Amino acid sequence: MTGKLFVIGTGPGNPEQMTQESRAAVSEATDFYGYGPYLDRLELRPDQRRQASDNRQELDRASDALKAAADGAIVCVVSGGDPGVFAMAAAVCEAIDNGPACWRDIDLVILPGITAMLAVAARTGAPLGHDFCTISLSDNLKPWNIIENRLQSAAMAGFVIALYNPISKARPWQLGRALELLRLTLPPTTPVIFGRAAGRPDERITVQPLQDADAGMADMATCVIIGSEETRVVARTGKPDLVYTPRFLEGGKR
Amino acid sequence: MTGKLFVIGTGPGNPEQMTQESRAAVSEATDFYGYGPYLDRLELRPDQRRQASDNRQELDRASDALKAAADGAIVCVVSGGDPGVFAMAAAVCEAIDNGPACWRDIDLVILPGITAMLAVAARTGAPLGHDFCTISLSDNLKPWNIIENRLQSAAMAGFVIALYNPISKARPWQLGRALELLRLTLPPTTPVIFGRAAGRPDERITVQPLQDADAGMADMATCVIIGSEETRVVARTGKPDLVYTPRFLEGGKR
Repeated sequence: MTGKLFVIGTGPGNPEQMTQESRAAVSEATDFYGYGPYLDRLELRPDQRRQASDNRQELDRASDALKAAADGAIVCVVSGGDPGVFAMAAAVCEAIDNGPACWRDIDLVILPGITAMLAVAARTGAPLGHDFCTISLSDNLKPWNIIENRLQSAAMAGFVIALYNPISKARPWQLGRALELLRLTLPPTTPVIFGRAAGRPDERITVQPLQDADAGMADMATCVIIGSEETRVVARTGKPDLVYTPRFLEGGKR
Repeated sequence: MTGKLFVIGTGPGNPEQMTQESRAAVSEATDFYGYGPYLDRLELRPDQRRQASDNRQELDRASDALKAAADGAIVCVVSGGDPGVFAMAAAVCEAIDNGPACWRDIDLVILPGITAMLAVAARTGAPLGHDFCTISLSDNLKPWNIIENRLQSAAMAGFVIALYNPISKARPWQLGRALELLRLTLPPTTPVIFGRAAGRPDERITVQPLQDADAGMADMATCVIIGSEETRVVARTGKPDLVYTPRFLEGGKR
């Protein structure tokens, strides 16, 4: 007997930012797998089981969830944000790719969620209003020289850059180095947004020009957005500045 | 008297993919501004007013909405997808930037939504599971040579690429040219996803290797995702292939 596997995202943490279809999946599932703090965001019934695991156990967690689904359970794997952006959907696909053939028969339903950069962007204006790229700064996942190359290529080609996993206890210097590198390519006034816990009660959003941008503003719950040469700041009295990247670039047809 | 301006996204079109906070904004607002087909996705009450406008009237629409809010109305500007990704949030910020000073006092609330690439990614696996970039293929918005440079930089640096606005009656050749260009850099087997109307009844998701990828698969409602060299395809019997980009790249610390 084969069950079902949902992979969902809670959004950045404000329960109002979950979609209806993800709520329905939570209501249908019997067994929940995820990093503890993400599971804590759900209001589960007493008959629903929690299997909390540590932040860095993605592949084991995916395999456990697939085993349970293969045994007939209705399982829900829970990510923060969107499950497809540096999160559990890739771990589940990887486990299926390398796992027993029967896992390919599981009814797999991945549901999109609000990923951090969209929530941070909405709180500041429209910094992602034109071409952008999304980079994980974790050199646990890839060699640091590849990260540097991607940062430089993106900045030189005029992309706005959203950085996930900017900093952690084990990775204290990488964000500072990334900002240094970007200072070689981008104007000193380029806006840098440190968007922490967007939409949550402990939200803290700070905008600094690249020349003063301080990696110390970021923690593990922060998404950093670095503007392009086109990105603009609109001052408002008694309100935070608006940051946006215009839709048009000179030379377009209209 | 100054009113309020919400800027929301409906998600790609499945009403179940709207967030709770966007639904609450729809319920609170009195005056709705947007492209007609996006307004049609909302179930408005008889006392709520619709101001539908054409797809290419973004700046006029933003100005009209800001005027109404400055006059005291509770206004909702409606995008498809996420309002911050090639959509109305940037147009509203631009109108504020260039408009009368009093528009800066308006209570502006931008709410994130599910943008097309996240919905398409969820339907196919996890193609955006590692670094990616997001490019509008519209050369109404910027010169074509900049688009070519961005495509090439992104492919060479190993980013997965999500393309918005891939094709239209007035822009028939651009997607074909983009695919040709990417064939010069990426392996012929690189998966290309044509994700049309994800989550809607008329959804059509197709995966083709880059060597055979046919721009004719795309229309205005399509988001195209082009894998990187790392992106993998997992065949499943009686189910669509899974496409994912692994979280790890060789050379990472673990």
